[in-house]
Amino acid sequence: MKEIKIKASKEYDVIITSGWHNLLFQLENHKLKNFYIITDENVYNIHKTYFDLLTDKASGIFIIKAGEDYKNYDTISMIYEDMIKKKVNRKTAVIAIGGGVVGDLAGFAASTFMRGLRFVQIPTTLISQCDSSIGGKNGYNFNYIKNLIGNIYQPDLVYIDVNFLKTLSLREYINGMAEVIKYGFVCNKDFFNYLNDNKKGIMEREADKLLHIVYECVKIKGRVVEEDELDTDKRHILNFGHTIGHGIESASDFNILHGEAVSIGMAAESFIALKLGLIDTKSYDKLISLLKFFNLPVKFDLKIENILEYIKKDKKKISNDNKLVLPDGIGHAIITSEIKESFIHETLKEFTK
Amino acid sequence: MKEIKIKASKEYDVIITSGWHNLLFQLENHKLKNFYIITDENVYNIHKTYFDLLTDKASGIFIIKAGEDYKNYDTISMIYEDMIKKKVNRKTAVIAIGGGVVGDLAGFAASTFMRGLRFVQIPTTLISQCDSSIGGKNGYNFNYIKNLIGNIYQPDLVYIDVNFLKTLSLREYINGMAEVIKYGFVCNKDFFNYLNDNKKGIMEREADKLLHIVYECVKIKGRVVEEDELDTDKRHILNFGHTIGHGIESASDFNILHGEAVSIGMAAESFIALKLGLIDTKSYDKLISLLKFFNLPVKFDLKIENILEYIKKDKKKISNDNKLVLPDGIGHAIITSEIKESFIHETLKEFTK
Repeated sequence: MKEIKIKASKEYDVIITSGWHNLLFQLENHKLKNFYIITDENVYNIHKTYFDLLTDKASGIFIIKAGEDYKNYDTISMIYEDMIKKKVNRKTAVIAIGGGVVGDLAGFAASTFMRGLRFVQIPTTLISQCDSSIGGKNGYNFNYIKNLIGNIYQPDLVYIDVNFLKTLSLREYINGMAEVIKYGFVCNKDFFNYLNDNKKGIMEREADKLLHIVYECVKIKGRVVEEDELDTDKRHILNFGHTIGHGIESASDFNILHGEAVSIGMAAESFIALKLGLIDTKSYDKLISLLKFFNLPVKFDLKIENILEYIKKDKKKISNDNKLVLPDGIGHAIITSEIKESFIHETLKEFTK
Repeated sequence: MKEIKIKASKEYDVIITSGWHNLLFQLENHKLKNFYIITDENVYNIHKTYFDLLTDKASGIFIIKAGEDYKNYDTISMIYEDMIKKKVNRKTAVIAIGGGVVGDLAGFAASTFMRGLRFVQIPTTLISQCDSSIGGKNGYNFNYIKNLIGNIYQPDLVYIDVNFLKTLSLREYINGMAEVIKYGFVCNKDFFNYLNDNKKGIMEREADKLLHIVYECVKIKGRVVEEDELDTDKRHILNFGHTIGHGIESASDFNILHGEAVSIGMAAESFIALKLGLIDTKSYDKLISLLKFFNLPVKFDLKIENILEYIKKDKKKISNDNKLVLPDGIGHAIITSEIKESFIHETLKEFTK
């Protein structure tokens, strides 16, 4: 078992372990005694026995239909209604057990019911264990705009059981690996080398490898969150691969998964860095071959104009700047708004199938 | 002009002045350049000329129908839709101009749109200038439960123009005086004496009196918020008069205004303190005569059983404790959960008309 303390506006513990045997002790240790559980039907059906551990201490369990389609206010409102029915009060802690969608919806409900209840994240996917369960971001889609409504609300405890990762489909697991590789490539060279040296064991989901990669990712994410909790500047480094990635994800109508799109995005954004002389060919090739080893895509079969349209829309939402995260050596990156659209257009041509 | 710095999780300034002449300068001084204004039809109609000052810098203005009936998710959702239409982005600051309902709705929208925009409060009622605009609480009613959904989100600037108070109806002004008297009676003896000594000028809304009482209230509220931003213990002292007051407000079906109900609540809760020997008859009489001077009610014409029912419901929402704020001398109070329902029942009999 490993433990990381995150010192944001609220200080909280992240427990990284394999197995649930420690969960009840940790909850009690953090004075979390009355629960209301939010999960989705997939997680509930696969891990039913685990839920038995908690349900007699829970005032209720709300099972969301799985998928992005239900990440909206209708679901939030049904959760609120159920919370009223189950007499949830300020002494109740909301526990999210699931991937990013469950964490985002449960986090929003916990942060807004009675002006904020205590909140525990038990992430079950690689992407949520390494990324979305840390840092407090939550949200739901509004008028088809992804995560338009949400806030930043730190949990009281994050309990990560890497055993969950063994039940993920290969595509889902690989999807999370894109974010793991991202952390190495722009934040920590040693970790990038570790991924390279241990890729076979990681691909086979060996327990010690899973524990190590999740631990390293949480450490990196935690440090970045501590420096820029409200996502005003430094946290932006974690958007490596995401500017172009989001464009691809949207242009594919979400048929390309988030991590897959980020993989192509990292390839394209690194190519820009290569052309600008920020990184050398050797570093670039290392990234591409690691992505390929994990069967992550680095090419797409979409209209470039559509991708650019979505990138422009994304940017307008935030400001009129044109920001891109570009690696300048393995383990570092710069954030720039100097890259012209025509340059991105030319680059994307290299990545069409 | 007076200025108070509130040091919560976010540090922000409260400007207390008479007139709008300083507003544009203050906004610019706080780097607030792009605005989206939320107000209600009453405020907008009375203060149209003031809005002209701001509207050419605003990307939009949303005018809520006045009153508690519109304090729900439907209004929030219409605000979100308008914000999308008006291209509100992370550089926009939301400005609330109005009383408590406007501040609560605008604060919630600002705190949740794109995970949080900057937020300015321009409170226009005595109750919002002295109380609700400070401390970051926001919210809306859900399934007829008051403020069930909300969060705590500190503003970036609070600009208080006491001239607004001159346009309030007498009943609305008096309504706010209940909260002002509350601050004096349980938090600051000197301020309570000031209210007593200057009651005539205050009743006549003399500018210097208005500036002074708002300044003192903001100072007290700010200090309490700094000590207990998340409302876990110390902030509870400001609930003096509110436990019984809320019961009365609900039992009257909100025909008795919040401040009026708090006035009766303060009378009844002080009577309990008197019976327990926490305060003497002289202090009790001073409170009652000051409330009466401002034509605030100290008696009610409602079924006691109904009031008790609502008090019990309120408490269940928060915990199973039975908490009451009781003054123990002017300017101090204790928080107790030792008072039996039968004692409250007996006390309320003294306050029926």
